[in-house]
Amino acid sequence: MAEPAYYLGVDIGTTSTKAVLFDKTGNIGASASIHYPLHTPSAQAAEQDPEVIFRAVLGTVRETMRKSAIDPASLKLVSFSSAIHSLIAVGAEGELLSQAITWADSRAAKHATRIKEELDGHAIYLRTGTPVHAMSPLAKIVWLKEDKAEIFGETAMFADIKSFIFHKFFGEFVVDHSIASSTGLFNFKNLDWDSGALEVAGIHAGQLPKLVPTTHQLKGLAADHAAFMGIPKDVPFIIGASDGALANIGLGAIGPGVAAVTIGTSGAVRTVSPMPKTDPKGRTFCYALTADHWIIGGAVNNGGIILRWLLDEFAAAEVETAKRLGTNPYDVLTKIASTVNPGSDGLIFHPYLTGERAPIWDSNARGSFFGLSIHHEKQHMIRAVIEGIVFNLYTVALAVEEVTGEPTLIKASGGFARSEMLRQLLADVFGQPVTVPESFEVPVSARPFSACMRSVKSTTSASPET
Amino acid sequence: MAEPAYYLGVDIGTTSTKAVLFDKTGNIGASASIHYPLHTPSAQAAEQDPEVIFRAVLGTVRETMRKSAIDPASLKLVSFSSAIHSLIAVGAEGELLSQAITWADSRAAKHATRIKEELDGHAIYLRTGTPVHAMSPLAKIVWLKEDKAEIFGETAMFADIKSFIFHKFFGEFVVDHSIASSTGLFNFKNLDWDSGALEVAGIHAGQLPKLVPTTHQLKGLAADHAAFMGIPKDVPFIIGASDGALANIGLGAIGPGVAAVTIGTSGAVRTVSPMPKTDPKGRTFCYALTADHWIIGGAVNNGGIILRWLLDEFAAAEVETAKRLGTNPYDVLTKIASTVNPGSDGLIFHPYLTGERAPIWDSNARGSFFGLSIHHEKQHMIRAVIEGIVFNLYTVALAVEEVTGEPTLIKASGGFARSEMLRQLLADVFGQPVTVPESFEVPVSARPFSACMRSVKSTTSASPET
Repeated sequence: MAEPAYYLGVDIGTTSTKAVLFDKTGNIGASASIHYPLHTPSAQAAEQDPEVIFRAVLGTVRETMRKSAIDPASLKLVSFSSAIHSLIAVGAEGELLSQAITWADSRAAKHATRIKEELDGHAIYLRTGTPVHAMSPLAKIVWLKEDKAEIFGETAMFADIKSFIFHKFFGEFVVDHSIASSTGLFNFKNLDWDSGALEVAGIHAGQLPKLVPTTHQLKGLAADHAAFMGIPKDVPFIIGASDGALANIGLGAIGPGVAAVTIGTSGAVRTVSPMPKTDPKGRTFCYALTADHWIIGGAVNNGGIILRWLLDEFAAAEVETAKRLGTNPYDVLTKIASTVNPGSDGLIFHPYLTGERAPIWDSNARGSFFGLSIHHEKQHMIRAVIEGIVFNLYTVALAVEEVTGEPTLIKASGGFARSEMLRQLLADVFGQPVTVPESFEVPVSARPFSACMRSVKSTTSASPET
Repeated sequence: MAEPAYYLGVDIGTTSTKAVLFDKTGNIGASASIHYPLHTPSAQAAEQDPEVIFRAVLGTVRETMRKSAIDPASLKLVSFSSAIHSLIAVGAEGELLSQAITWADSRAAKHATRIKEELDGHAIYLRTGTPVHAMSPLAKIVWLKEDKAEIFGETAMFADIKSFIFHKFFGEFVVDHSIASSTGLFNFKNLDWDSGALEVAGIHAGQLPKLVPTTHQLKGLAADHAAFMGIPKDVPFIIGASDGALANIGLGAIGPGVAAVTIGTSGAVRTVSPMPKTDPKGRTFCYALTADHWIIGGAVNNGGIILRWLLDEFAAAEVETAKRLGTNPYDVLTKIASTVNPGSDGLIFHPYLTGERAPIWDSNARGSFFGLSIHHEKQHMIRAVIEGIVFNLYTVALAVEEVTGEPTLIKASGGFARSEMLRQLLADVFGQPVTVPESFEVPVSARPFSACMRSVKSTTSASPET
């Protein structure tokens, strides 16, 4: 009998950290997750406490090992994914000078505009693959430099959340090419920090973590942390990549012509290209996965967060009733939407309630219902909102198509993909078959690279055109 | 003691006919009303049966006389008002060739466009005071000529509903200057049918009722009708004017600087000018009341009908609850709206759900919510809709102002004016004090001319600017 072997995937997200154990054939074993808050002391700020996230990483690994009761010696590796665009200012003694500033933080908005308009931001995008936007660490560093000079001046290391955690584990700041490629500071041609971007940021490469490939291994875990987590201190830690890039692997969306469409709170369209590519119009991102796998796509703000708004503002009474009947609130929305013709009888909804990233890159954009007639009822508005979310993502997909070619299959994930009606709508709008992963319980990015290739349960075809 | 004297006002509306008895000093006595349907066999058609309306006139007068139990000899006159823009095709033998085609009928839309664009419609407007639109009898006659040639060819008389009823009473077709001035066929300079408009319509003046002033009296009522109604057959019938023009009198909005703002199902802004005036931009109407009283104003489609839509689509559950508490549904809307700041925190609503007449004259216009952010809740949408209705009327008022000068007082009427919150909103948006009539039970246009001058109950001032 073969020696038992297990792999642990850890996904450091913006709402929680999740750890999942897999066996050799990719089957899911024990798992654990710990949620933490997003702090929004102002409408623009969106921060998290790095120490709290670090304790969540320790806690989820410990809990997963405890639940699984496997022999720790059979754990062959721990692999990581994390959200992109986070920035943490760290002092010379390793002390925190800032919280983890997340992608959703918009305090760098006017600095991003200035980089775009005055500092040749489009050329930086064409070299780095990261759209110039408040979300990017480049813009955040410029914000610190100009508005928080006391922090900027003291910062020895501009880390991301994963680098910060690896520094806790191994005493060094390392960042994988994937996370680095989403900072706006990483030149994807020479796989190094971009001198022009560093100049705009006003920093030198020594203030950024050491660059390593996504398959990079570290060993020699700090003994106290190893003991707490219940794992051997010589188990290899794979630095891994960004959650979005790994989601394409988890979904099996890495071949030519396959696009991953994710709608969680926000949303994204992502394809994999064998080489880095950017959009002359600046609409798409290009993030590294490996040297010959590049994620080309676009991320939107307005995904499930708009469904949540729709639920609260348009269907509170219906949801109240549905709850008593044991029905999922989102099923109420899709059932109401299903009573209306595709196209909502001419009613159009622009979903830009939180401003928008791709495809329009305008944080001042706002939403609208457009074309209202006296014949439109609440169910038309509900359907129009859902259609607006999907059409916005389709517009992103069209921009991605211009860069990478037309997809022939959509792999859908995120809460949105659980609904048959929404999967069908995706298939109809995109005009492509849609498949969904076999499990919604495990974040697809938490699966180690090798264990994720058979994860398709069902296929939804586009409706025949009539 | 003075001889008792009574006056009967009869208002022929598009939803009902109402009769009201007044005494010498304008006090209201008995009244009666009879509703009748609006037939909409297609989305464009909006017709009523003239015979049904005639029986409603007979019935309401009979019922009012019966209820009042006054001596019929003390009835000194019967005075009429009616809705404008109705058209009835009558054959040579007095037979009906069409139903009463109401203002809301839009089958003449493309003909109106053609008149405007190809047949110098703006010049016709400048001579007749009636905007060229599907609502106007001019456009309706062109529609009959071009799309219903068999009816057009047989028509001996193009009557309006009041002419039709007076023909039943007195055997002749007469139309007052007020109703005539809303046909698009009446030249307000020479107080006669306009030869250019007749040419466009393809008819001659003999196919239109005889023109008379609004104070014109007829005597010699058909004996059977007099007997049925319970009134002497020699009581004088005053032909009267349009409901809108008389509403200005009823509201006391006839002096300089006074504007009547009415929001019923639709809405209007109307002022009185001592001479006819038109708008070089074609936004306002100019309808006769007397030789030296001309109603300058604009009518909108989207008044209370949008509040009804708002109630149904945004507040059904709240209204259900409120009903159980004995609260008026519209009070629910205004209470919810009152929880939100003026301006709805930046959310804008265009109320053009049924297309629009003044101020934009575009039947293809549609409504929109504009500027939606994730912070906008249902109460913001409710307030934005109400504000949108009022701002649309204010835009009409600004157009009227360009023609007649700025008003200094608003006299409000219609269901909308019953709400304190809505009166305050009117006062704030218009920046003028707002007064309302003492009674909402009697249509202001049903009051004989002389009896309506003291009808102000309360004044709402604009909020102080802070």
